[in-house]
Amino acid sequence: MRRYIYNGKILSLAIEDEHWEIVEHKDAVALLVKDPERGVLFVEQYRPAIGRRTLEIPAGLIEPNESPEEAARRELAEEAQLGGRLEKLAEFYTSPGFTDEKLYLFRVHEPQPASGTPDDDEDLTIVWRDPAAVLAAANRGETAISASTLAGILFALEQ
Amino acid sequence: MRRYIYNGKILSLAIEDEHWEIVEHKDAVALLVKDPERGVLFVEQYRPAIGRRTLEIPAGLIEPNESPEEAARRELAEEAQLGGRLEKLAEFYTSPGFTDEKLYLFRVHEPQPASGTPDDDEDLTIVWRDPAAVLAAANRGETAISASTLAGILFALEQ
Repeated sequence: MRRYIYNGKILSLAIEDEHWEIVEHKDAVALLVKDPERGVLFVEQYRPAIGRRTLEIPAGLIEPNESPEEAARRELAEEAQLGGRLEKLAEFYTSPGFTDEKLYLFRVHEPQPASGTPDDDEDLTIVWRDPAAVLAAANRGETAISASTLAGILFALEQ
Repeated sequence: MRRYIYNGKILSLAIEDEHWEIVEHKDAVALLVKDPERGVLFVEQYRPAIGRRTLEIPAGLIEPNESPEEAARRELAEEAQLGGRLEKLAEFYTSPGFTDEKLYLFRVHEPQPASGTPDDDEDLTIVWRDPAAVLAAANRGETAISASTLAGILFALEQ
């Protein structure tokens, strides 16, 4: 039995069986865009939850009635003004010990310009970086990355 | 300014600047144990947050006054009754859009028996699996994996 403590915009908090603290969260998508010369496409942005700027591959929440592919296509256009052919690389739960958030990671093949505008509350900078250098900087604690970004980097390095 | 709505055992919920829904969560560790013949060591367990059983590499929360390495060593002994030499493979935020949870992923070299007992509220089964097969099953939606498990699988496949 889930007893709800909070119902919000992007998440709800519940206690299950008076024991487990559970955060219900919308599912999300993340996108790997790789270029043979420029490296991997990252978004630099400030994340209030951690009080730091992060380097993340483009990502966003899946809206109601959207498929993961549709959300991926929309986010890619909004955040990076790009489109392309999508290939699903992985699906996983970000942290199933406390949240049901599920993430779908796509690779974008043959990226090409597309029109889109970031959300009002997003202050994003697009940068291309060498994925091995970002991983090394993250492991020195200098750069903050997300789980989907780590997965994207590892797929980029093996392909 | 963070206004707190809930303060719990493993997480707290706050609203920052009356806009951002933020879950403060303990940091965590995860461990990659790889064997040339048996594959990768996974823990099979039921996760109330997603209502499913998962296949995850051994993982757990970092307790107060514990370093990531100390937590990794303790979790490895508790969940898998193993010890060994630890190498940090990655550190990342699980989902920095809403939570400050940070995860430290270690590889265990030269694993050897160690004594330890799982927590009372954990119902764990240890299994060895081929990492490529687990990734394929996860992508078909048949197996639920975590972000740290995906990262562990990708490191196992490249090494």
